[in-house]
Amino acid sequence: MNNSLSIIPLGGVEEIGLNSTVFEYSDDIIIVDAGLMFPEEDMLGVDFVIPDYSYVFENREKIKGIIITHGHEDHTGALPFLLKEIDVPVYGTPLTIGLIKEKLKEHHLERIRLIAVRPRDVIQLGAFNIEFVRVTHSIVDGVGLCINTPLGRVVHTGDFKLDPTPVDGQLMDFHRFSEYGEKGTLLLLSDSTNAEKGGFTFSEKEVRRAFEDIFSKVKGRIIISTFASNIHRIQQAIDVAVMYGKKVILCGRSIVSNSQIALDLGYLSIPANTWLRLEDLNKLHDEEVVIITTGSQGEPMSVLSRIAIGEHKTIQIKDGDTVILSAKIIPGNERSIGKIINHLFRRGANVIYEKVSEIHVSGHASKEELKLMLNMVRPKYFMPIHGEYRHLRYHGMLAEKTVVPKENIFILENGEVLEISEAGAAKNGAVSSGRVFIDGKGMGDVEDMVLRDRRRLAHDGIVLVHIAVEKLTGNIVSGPDIISRGFVFEDASPDVMNDVKELVLETLSHMDKEMITDSSLLQAKLRSTLKKYLRNTMERRPMIMPIIVEV
Amino acid sequence: MNNSLSIIPLGGVEEIGLNSTVFEYSDDIIIVDAGLMFPEEDMLGVDFVIPDYSYVFENREKIKGIIITHGHEDHTGALPFLLKEIDVPVYGTPLTIGLIKEKLKEHHLERIRLIAVRPRDVIQLGAFNIEFVRVTHSIVDGVGLCINTPLGRVVHTGDFKLDPTPVDGQLMDFHRFSEYGEKGTLLLLSDSTNAEKGGFTFSEKEVRRAFEDIFSKVKGRIIISTFASNIHRIQQAIDVAVMYGKKVILCGRSIVSNSQIALDLGYLSIPANTWLRLEDLNKLHDEEVVIITTGSQGEPMSVLSRIAIGEHKTIQIKDGDTVILSAKIIPGNERSIGKIINHLFRRGANVIYEKVSEIHVSGHASKEELKLMLNMVRPKYFMPIHGEYRHLRYHGMLAEKTVVPKENIFILENGEVLEISEAGAAKNGAVSSGRVFIDGKGMGDVEDMVLRDRRRLAHDGIVLVHIAVEKLTGNIVSGPDIISRGFVFEDASPDVMNDVKELVLETLSHMDKEMITDSSLLQAKLRSTLKKYLRNTMERRPMIMPIIVEV
Repeated sequence: MNNSLSIIPLGGVEEIGLNSTVFEYSDDIIIVDAGLMFPEEDMLGVDFVIPDYSYVFENREKIKGIIITHGHEDHTGALPFLLKEIDVPVYGTPLTIGLIKEKLKEHHLERIRLIAVRPRDVIQLGAFNIEFVRVTHSIVDGVGLCINTPLGRVVHTGDFKLDPTPVDGQLMDFHRFSEYGEKGTLLLLSDSTNAEKGGFTFSEKEVRRAFEDIFSKVKGRIIISTFASNIHRIQQAIDVAVMYGKKVILCGRSIVSNSQIALDLGYLSIPANTWLRLEDLNKLHDEEVVIITTGSQGEPMSVLSRIAIGEHKTIQIKDGDTVILSAKIIPGNERSIGKIINHLFRRGANVIYEKVSEIHVSGHASKEELKLMLNMVRPKYFMPIHGEYRHLRYHGMLAEKTVVPKENIFILENGEVLEISEAGAAKNGAVSSGRVFIDGKGMGDVEDMVLRDRRRLAHDGIVLVHIAVEKLTGNIVSGPDIISRGFVFEDASPDVMNDVKELVLETLSHMDKEMITDSSLLQAKLRSTLKKYLRNTMERRPMIMPIIVEV
Repeated sequence: MNNSLSIIPLGGVEEIGLNSTVFEYSDDIIIVDAGLMFPEEDMLGVDFVIPDYSYVFENREKIKGIIITHGHEDHTGALPFLLKEIDVPVYGTPLTIGLIKEKLKEHHLERIRLIAVRPRDVIQLGAFNIEFVRVTHSIVDGVGLCINTPLGRVVHTGDFKLDPTPVDGQLMDFHRFSEYGEKGTLLLLSDSTNAEKGGFTFSEKEVRRAFEDIFSKVKGRIIISTFASNIHRIQQAIDVAVMYGKKVILCGRSIVSNSQIALDLGYLSIPANTWLRLEDLNKLHDEEVVIITTGSQGEPMSVLSRIAIGEHKTIQIKDGDTVILSAKIIPGNERSIGKIINHLFRRGANVIYEKVSEIHVSGHASKEELKLMLNMVRPKYFMPIHGEYRHLRYHGMLAEKTVVPKENIFILENGEVLEISEAGAAKNGAVSSGRVFIDGKGMGDVEDMVLRDRRRLAHDGIVLVHIAVEKLTGNIVSGPDIISRGFVFEDASPDVMNDVKELVLETLSHMDKEMITDSSLLQAKLRSTLKKYLRNTMERRPMIMPIIVEV
């Protein structure tokens, strides 16, 4: 409809990550955020996931711009894939733009226009008049948005928490959010990541206290692992290092690159002679050393992983080292992180992590903060975003308890359309949506069927039966040979392989020449016979592939 | 050595689970616990893991008996596999023996002698004189052990917490543990599961308060999911159900079987007319219904999973239902549990879980309790058990802070031998040990190589190239045909498959007849060529299997 506003989440309302929302009015579309998600455990071999942007590509001529609320991967990671297809300007604050610039360079997308804006700047994109509003979050320079549309004001919080003492002193713009409430807001979209958590999220400054406590007691080297984008955390580690007369070595490509960008743009401040190179490590006394690196999620190729298993070229753990994992343990990563902690302990380090110390605070608002946001903005309609269904549901309950009647709360799925017109708001159908799997350089060539196969292969492996059959006579001229991978250890289980071979021969002996020369029939017969046999005798279900060569 | 005592953990000191320890003196061996572990995420297709019992099998004539401290799977689950090979009596308290009896029946091991003992009973097994000591834990009828040896007293806590208000009123035997300390204890082995957690673990009774709070407010049906072995939890749910005039339906094979065993042995008490059958569900008003079931870990075939996805025959979620996940979320299961919670919310239930309510307490002692145990027993030597390295290390630090000098604390790996003689205690070598993977009916036929293959298949799938070659001439008589599984979606990527085929043809055209007729040479050449090509063009590393048929 031409006089209606459509809000379409393409990602971020059925998962943590993949954040991307389309706003459409008449012939104008803007996209807010274009994030990726790291794969779930059943997405075997997938490097990461991005939203299906078919709807955007189908409406490419309408798109006026992309707005990015902050520089985290779950808000920026899909940009290169989106921008390969459409050529529109991207708006964000200076640090956000700095990080995006670096990312686009890797994808040879220097042609894209990147426009840096500051909080309280206002831009016009087609029918949309957009004000950027400062929020506090676990990355510097995050913003929420006030999107003024012909139908009224839409407020989008981005990711936020209400941090009363942010590390950079840049306070949350309470005035603007309250003013949006005072003047009237049609719709609020708000971050639901921590909607399950009671109380308030601690200020980022609390981590400084934990750092001070550790730095003041520890005699040996200190290694801190955090997210490369967490400039606040890096700043605090540097500040406390300086306070205790230590030097800082940044280690790892992403953390060096992000820190350099932040430093160049003035978001990070490092006193002279504090940032040393890894090559200088051995010139320092142990008590002077603070190494800041990534790998807090147990990523196998990260610096921290390599240190943990003793395979880092320069850094070897020794007695007296202290390793601090200053990051949230993302669900699904507990075991790999646990292993790294065990390895580090075994090599003599003391390891400090979320479970045993207050070494991390979340960047997302807890229940009390979410209620305050609802109190300030007092929207007519409410749409919780950034979360799985349970997070959105909890957030919805908070809205209901505070300022929004139940019928005005909309929990959408990816692709669903919330349509707002003079008559009111309602869900109105859905556009095509979904997830696109990125595996290596491929984009979209890993479909559900491929993942199903990978799961099957992962579970019980594959059994190959190959036979060469003479086309005319049906005589077996070679084989049957049985090969397996990921099924059983063949040397230890010769009986199994022999039994399978016998079974194939027996099956063949009961088939007449006509059936044998019909290779698809023969394949089907062998597949079903072996499947049944292995299920009954071994309770296993390997993928069975009969390969019939006709000569 | 003949006059020395050897303590050999075969499992449970590099992982949570797999608990099993050998005690050996002269010609006598006893085994304490024989547990399984559920697979880690890289153990693809493995159903569960048990310790490698080679050492036990090699010394089968020495084994005097197996003692089980309590009925949890991580202490009993390897028993059937162990008892298939050796025929020795098994000792445990009545509930433990009841649960084991059921398990052995499934494995047709009725021949095994099961001997029920009670706390403070004393048995003699060869050189070992063993007293059973009551402990409190998340399963009824758990015990620790006082193992008197010719060299002195060894105290083994089993799994425990110091619960001052256990649900069954059976108090921890503080007197005995203190007396062991007073009389002198050579070695303490103690549960390290929660050694990272500060403070005290709450009493199981605290969960009753949460149940009362929920039961008093909720109007609709209540579905509680917990571990089938958590008889205390089931008792509390029943007690509160009775208090609010509700009926209880137990749903799921294991929970019904365990409850029946506990009921028969007097460990569970259910008033008349309270336990109804699932068939009676529709005769009840919603506010009368409490269903107790399993599936709290998101297991895909559990009752709760089937309810969540709408595939349970009898129980369909409707508005007003409340689902309580009254169990710990075991690390690694967060995502599958999260999905179930989302599904249940979507179908209209309210879901209450660990993160949002005090609906679960741990069964393991936290730091303060561990220190109290050390204070009571005051051992000369200390060996933390039941944990990954970091848990053992933290527990070691607690021992050092309280009563054991650092040099008397021994953190062992599986298979390592702690030898104690008149001269003192020291690590002395290792016996063969490891993990045996159980996959379907197979035991031990899934080796590391098979898992490596599964991981590789899982990551990028498999590409098969098959060619029939005339033995004498080297002429290609059939193929090359390219088939892939789990690699790319072939319909969407015909180019890739064509490119691979072209590359194979080109490779063949550069090889002389002699090389082509040497099938192992041809295989190696094709493998390396395709591997390089796919890595460079697509950044993928599928398993490549050239199949050469010679005719």
